[in-house]
Amino acid sequence: MRTSIATVSLSGSLTEKLDAAARAGFDGVEIFENDLLASPLTPEDVRVRCADLGLRIDLYQPMRDIEAVPEAEFARNLRRARHKFELMRRLGAATVLVCSSVSPQAVDDDALAAEQLSRLADAARESGVRVAYEALAWGRHVSTYDHAWRIVEAAGHPALGTCLDSFHILSRGSDPQGIEDIPGEKIFFLQLADAPLLAMDVLQWSRHYRCFPGQGGFDVAGLVRHVLATGYDGPLSLEVFNDVFRQSEAGPTAVDARRSLLLLQEEVGKAPLPGPVLPTGVAFAELVTPDAEPLAALLGALGFTRTARHRGKPVGLWEQGDARILVNTGPAVRRDGARLAAIGLESPDPAAAARRAEALLAPVLPRRRAPEDAPLDAVAAPDGTELFFCAGDRPERPGWRADFEDTGRPPGQAGIRGIDHLALTQPWHHFDEAALFHRGVLGLHAQESVDVADPYGLMRSRAVTNADGSVRIALTVGAAPTDDTVHAQHIALATDDVVAAARRFRDAGGSPLPVPANYYDDLAARFEFADGELETYRDLGILYDRDAHGVFRHCYTRTVGRVFFELVQRDGGYRGYGAVNAPVRLAAQHAVRALTGG
Amino acid sequence: MRTSIATVSLSGSLTEKLDAAARAGFDGVEIFENDLLASPLTPEDVRVRCADLGLRIDLYQPMRDIEAVPEAEFARNLRRARHKFELMRRLGAATVLVCSSVSPQAVDDDALAAEQLSRLADAARESGVRVAYEALAWGRHVSTYDHAWRIVEAAGHPALGTCLDSFHILSRGSDPQGIEDIPGEKIFFLQLADAPLLAMDVLQWSRHYRCFPGQGGFDVAGLVRHVLATGYDGPLSLEVFNDVFRQSEAGPTAVDARRSLLLLQEEVGKAPLPGPVLPTGVAFAELVTPDAEPLAALLGALGFTRTARHRGKPVGLWEQGDARILVNTGPAVRRDGARLAAIGLESPDPAAAARRAEALLAPVLPRRRAPEDAPLDAVAAPDGTELFFCAGDRPERPGWRADFEDTGRPPGQAGIRGIDHLALTQPWHHFDEAALFHRGVLGLHAQESVDVADPYGLMRSRAVTNADGSVRIALTVGAAPTDDTVHAQHIALATDDVVAAARRFRDAGGSPLPVPANYYDDLAARFEFADGELETYRDLGILYDRDAHGVFRHCYTRTVGRVFFELVQRDGGYRGYGAVNAPVRLAAQHAVRALTGG
Repeated sequence: MRTSIATVSLSGSLTEKLDAAARAGFDGVEIFENDLLASPLTPEDVRVRCADLGLRIDLYQPMRDIEAVPEAEFARNLRRARHKFELMRRLGAATVLVCSSVSPQAVDDDALAAEQLSRLADAARESGVRVAYEALAWGRHVSTYDHAWRIVEAAGHPALGTCLDSFHILSRGSDPQGIEDIPGEKIFFLQLADAPLLAMDVLQWSRHYRCFPGQGGFDVAGLVRHVLATGYDGPLSLEVFNDVFRQSEAGPTAVDARRSLLLLQEEVGKAPLPGPVLPTGVAFAELVTPDAEPLAALLGALGFTRTARHRGKPVGLWEQGDARILVNTGPAVRRDGARLAAIGLESPDPAAAARRAEALLAPVLPRRRAPEDAPLDAVAAPDGTELFFCAGDRPERPGWRADFEDTGRPPGQAGIRGIDHLALTQPWHHFDEAALFHRGVLGLHAQESVDVADPYGLMRSRAVTNADGSVRIALTVGAAPTDDTVHAQHIALATDDVVAAARRFRDAGGSPLPVPANYYDDLAARFEFADGELETYRDLGILYDRDAHGVFRHCYTRTVGRVFFELVQRDGGYRGYGAVNAPVRLAAQHAVRALTGG
Repeated sequence: MRTSIATVSLSGSLTEKLDAAARAGFDGVEIFENDLLASPLTPEDVRVRCADLGLRIDLYQPMRDIEAVPEAEFARNLRRARHKFELMRRLGAATVLVCSSVSPQAVDDDALAAEQLSRLADAARESGVRVAYEALAWGRHVSTYDHAWRIVEAAGHPALGTCLDSFHILSRGSDPQGIEDIPGEKIFFLQLADAPLLAMDVLQWSRHYRCFPGQGGFDVAGLVRHVLATGYDGPLSLEVFNDVFRQSEAGPTAVDARRSLLLLQEEVGKAPLPGPVLPTGVAFAELVTPDAEPLAALLGALGFTRTARHRGKPVGLWEQGDARILVNTGPAVRRDGARLAAIGLESPDPAAAARRAEALLAPVLPRRRAPEDAPLDAVAAPDGTELFFCAGDRPERPGWRADFEDTGRPPGQAGIRGIDHLALTQPWHHFDEAALFHRGVLGLHAQESVDVADPYGLMRSRAVTNADGSVRIALTVGAAPTDDTVHAQHIALATDDVVAAARRFRDAGGSPLPVPANYYDDLAARFEFADGELETYRDLGILYDRDAHGVFRHCYTRTVGRVFFELVQRDGGYRGYGAVNAPVRLAAQHAVRALTGG
């Protein structure tokens, strides 16, 4: 099916929006009138520009408050409309959107509405334009899609059809089943938007909080199935009003938008994408750093040993249990300290996983970094993290290990079993797209998001996981652009005995993150502990949580660059990530930073 | 009355919050448990710190989901509570807040609730603590203040009273009249918060969108009057959960908070503040710039002449009609280009205006900048703009003029009558506090705020004015921290003939902001014009708007540094600021900037 996007969904000038839509692979655009008015391009310029970019102008949006008004008012509206139809001829746009009136002058008279829309369609037809009439959820008298359709049907005009908009239909809780009663050829256009399920004023909800399909709570795919059942063969078009998208780079937003449409098309059986290949484990986490020493000291204190080095690059492999950490000091490293740059995901079919990611517009990375390297399938996630798909042939060495030669040292044995989870800080307000990426591209399951109070602002966190929990990624985003030294990425290491691991870490010279004594007084109030248990936690800086399934104990290292480590012990099927303790951890990190200035 | 603030209303560590509250002049704080848990200070440290700062700990907030639960659960709760009462003894906090339960275990049984709260109060009394029970708006069984009071009354325990919270009462639309049925000595605490009138889920509304009294839509003063009528003599305490305040500097937020309480006390007759002295006109606008030449060229093209120079400083006075612009190239000027640094407001009583501003915590600026200068009363607005209160003795020269000596040139005569309005860009998300400042401190009237679509993000704008419109200030804020070269401040100059003024400007070598041709095609569709009228507007870059009262015509200069000028003609009582044209203006400014790189 053809895909389209409304210019209002993207940030920037009209030319920036058109370029971004074309680069993301859209077939067409809806041009929102304000974008044209503010552009120095003439309508003819825009027409040529779109043609050069391979974009069709699927819809033009200038018309409001047209119908069911007194005759003198309608005459003014018709005059205005004729101007716009002439403009559309110059622009090469064949369909105009008319939203149901919100004017206080509009009367509740379907016959009058049908008659006036019919006259509007007469005028439109003279300019080769057709009119798509849509019910706004907050329309004065017409606010449901079936009502708009009854008026269109009553008008019976060949140049008049209806436009369906998933937001206006689903936000009102209308049953989309009735869409199938509309003949497909009378559905002139289909606009799609999702939205988080917020109990708020529908106009505000619509204008500020829409999102791309799959990012919110509506069953957009279900609605599309009903529309397709009518024989509709127009484009799927995204019309998303969103405060964040308005101020984000148009290029990445357009890519996210088109990815959401591809996933939607897959869901309704209209896009033959390569199927998802779920990752089965974490092969490695790769840290890049300008200076390996602080990380080497930290990994050493955690009980890792440097078991191998890359044959051609300054990359060391540190191992313990199934936890494998690459430390890369190569030339591509930025000077701002250590950071988590790549994740190796074990995959039953790396090439197929990469094909799906590529089909879903993830940038594909070169398969070999150097001629002598083993080929690796890799893509970039929206936050820039590189995802490598690795043959999951544990306990044999996976393919990527062939690029490393052993140092002769055995893996460490200090009680770390593997990587429990990885936490990735997302760029400001690019949270929903990250969750959709990990869900749609990797096939991971997204859990509910939780608010976490940092002393300097509210954060949100959401985990994506595979079924057995062997791949867990926590996506975190701040409430505002903030200092990412504190909102750092981290690697959580799994252990069966966090007390022993924490003690070993400290005895090996590691610096645990100090936890305030008040936290332990509160634990004493909330839970009953065995003799000495709480004192042990207090001594080692171990945090504690409990859910319906089990117990979670965890502690943290200091931060190196933008990365820190966590030691975690999950017992009895505890499912969370200790979010209740995050405010204490964040405050402690701020306090350390205030002391050390780093 | 004593004033207090909850630590959750401020950003930062506990010590930062306490310092900010004390500096702003609060008498006490409510300590939110998480702030204490995350602090490295012991409870005794916090007690000493508060005493040193002159702060009383008016409330401690650790208790949730206590009452009306099965006995085994209550026993656990009581155990937890005893820990907290002991903590409060160490902290020196005498009152604990208990919110009505949201636990799924809670049962709908007022007698049980009263009995368990009574036992809780017994335990509290042993530690010298009293319990304030509050109805959460989303409490499971107890969600209204009168219900909470009935339970407290039934318990009849001397250490058990109720806590009233304006948000929980007013968000549910409860009638606060009934508060007067509660004996004042049983109201143990009063928490105040305002909120914008949003139709949204009350829990989300409460957790993210509360604001300080006077910044939202609730009648907080009306509620306080009912509380005072009971004889309540505890503190007025602010408990505001707000995503923005969480990430703003604690110091300024605390000042805004206390200012809002002072204004509230004034409203209920409890704070004898110096009364407002409304400004009667704009005496001058002062621009600072590292390089006077570009501004001199621009002012010259607009028809201003440099009529005077400051006797002691590099400040020139440019005049035309009643518009007076100071151009300051003094040493305090930052290197980032011209900006609007100060506004002279004509005032019938400058000293009294300054006294009110000072009483409302506006920083007072030195009365003389140099020993030889005439004394001037001046304060800083929250955005840093200096506000000078000038003797409003027009048409005689106001006092500040005495510091200037004439150049011998007469004021310009190119059709500018005076300053129509000044537009000030506010720091990100400090919009409501700015409106409250201008309203409360200066006595201006705040109009409704409007959304304006910039190509790169949504902006909000709100005007504050005096009754006759001779002082109009438009406060504008972006949806995110954005480039303020584009979101610049501006000075709008009033003319009775914008066509002549614009033509004169162009003929004098001025560069008007170019307006796209598409804008005029749209005007032609929307309005009917006399022959040649639209062509004139198109030729001169004049924008057009109409409201129920009259017509507005306006055009813009290019931006110099961070300032630009607007020429405006208001006819027939037009009241707005041409907001409908703002997207076109903003896009044109972006386009100019993209071309010039500046």
